[in-house]
Amino acid sequence: MTSRSIPEPTLKRLAGYLRCLNEIDPPDLEFIASEELGRRTQCPAELVRRDLSYFGEFGRRGVGYNVALLRQTIAKILHLNQRQNVILVGAGNLGRALVAYPGWHQYNLVIVAAFDTDPARIGEEIGGVRVEDASRLSERVDELGARMAILTVPAQAAQPAADQLIAAGIKGILNFAPTPLEAPRSVVVRNVSVITEMAALSYLTSEGA
Amino acid sequence: MTSRSIPEPTLKRLAGYLRCLNEIDPPDLEFIASEELGRRTQCPAELVRRDLSYFGEFGRRGVGYNVALLRQTIAKILHLNQRQNVILVGAGNLGRALVAYPGWHQYNLVIVAAFDTDPARIGEEIGGVRVEDASRLSERVDELGARMAILTVPAQAAQPAADQLIAAGIKGILNFAPTPLEAPRSVVVRNVSVITEMAALSYLTSEGA
Repeated sequence: MTSRSIPEPTLKRLAGYLRCLNEIDPPDLEFIASEELGRRTQCPAELVRRDLSYFGEFGRRGVGYNVALLRQTIAKILHLNQRQNVILVGAGNLGRALVAYPGWHQYNLVIVAAFDTDPARIGEEIGGVRVEDASRLSERVDELGARMAILTVPAQAAQPAADQLIAAGIKGILNFAPTPLEAPRSVVVRNVSVITEMAALSYLTSEGA
Repeated sequence: MTSRSIPEPTLKRLAGYLRCLNEIDPPDLEFIASEELGRRTQCPAELVRRDLSYFGEFGRRGVGYNVALLRQTIAKILHLNQRQNVILVGAGNLGRALVAYPGWHQYNLVIVAAFDTDPARIGEEIGGVRVEDASRLSERVDELGARMAILTVPAQAAQPAADQLIAAGIKGILNFAPTPLEAPRSVVVRNVSVITEMAALSYLTSEGA
């Protein structure tokens, strides 16, 4: 397996390891054993070792992984080793919550601009980011060199906004709107559906599931 | 396969079908073909037919599925056919956004109470729900007969809040806090991790992924 074809579950675990390493406690911890990394990310140690062995030899028997090196390596694999400008479309409560999240910088992700169509929101400042007129989205994506966008608009506004993002050259969309999006194959759309998660939770917590 | 052991991908697709049927357009549509249901949920028609055939015969050749019957059946499978009270812990921006989501009622999910530890938030009203003191959580869960909770607190507050929820008898937690939770096997935890999704998006949109 090359890093070009990381399967989805591995990808999610890598992100989990990175999160753990980014927030490592104590912050000066130099080495971490696969057992401990597994415990903190709720993965079996065996799986941790298998995941990480694909990408080289970081572990030292009896010592564990070098925290700084492993962190750097996973960040590089995920292309999170250098700053990426992200834009957000939809400056409602959810958009505000996401902009305000204090952890982005640890992943070199920076929400540099927020857009909305509502005149009442345009010009407002949310979490240090000024809300801009969505009609200026295309030129701003270009100026900001953004590759990824977070979409937090209502369902009926989602497809038009996605079309605008795609036309502006955005390559990846994290979609929070409760509707599937149509996009060309060259654009990656990932959906975060709260309703789907709650429906699954409802099933899984019911008697007999 | 019985409905007792629906695999995760099927579960997510069922939730997607239900969403589509709940928001069917036109609202008086009586029958829907598997091709059309597939198109609207971005699933191959073949998969739609396979998923639904597990649960009985709804389709009529050349006519399609009866929308009302299919909707009712999927809602029943997911235990969304009768009202469920849900509580929310953490009344910040994200919590507010979730409470304000207008689509819950279509799934018979009702966020009946919100809790926070911040005295400045307690007593506030968010989306028609009064924010209550988190110290009263246990008795309120009992009174409200809530089985599921949505957790929208900061990372460091997540485990203590989860422990409190579990002690109060909550059986399912949708965790938005950017940290894994420890929970007994009898409690279902589902994590919505924005950072994990963005990390995956970063990888998948990078050159060569």
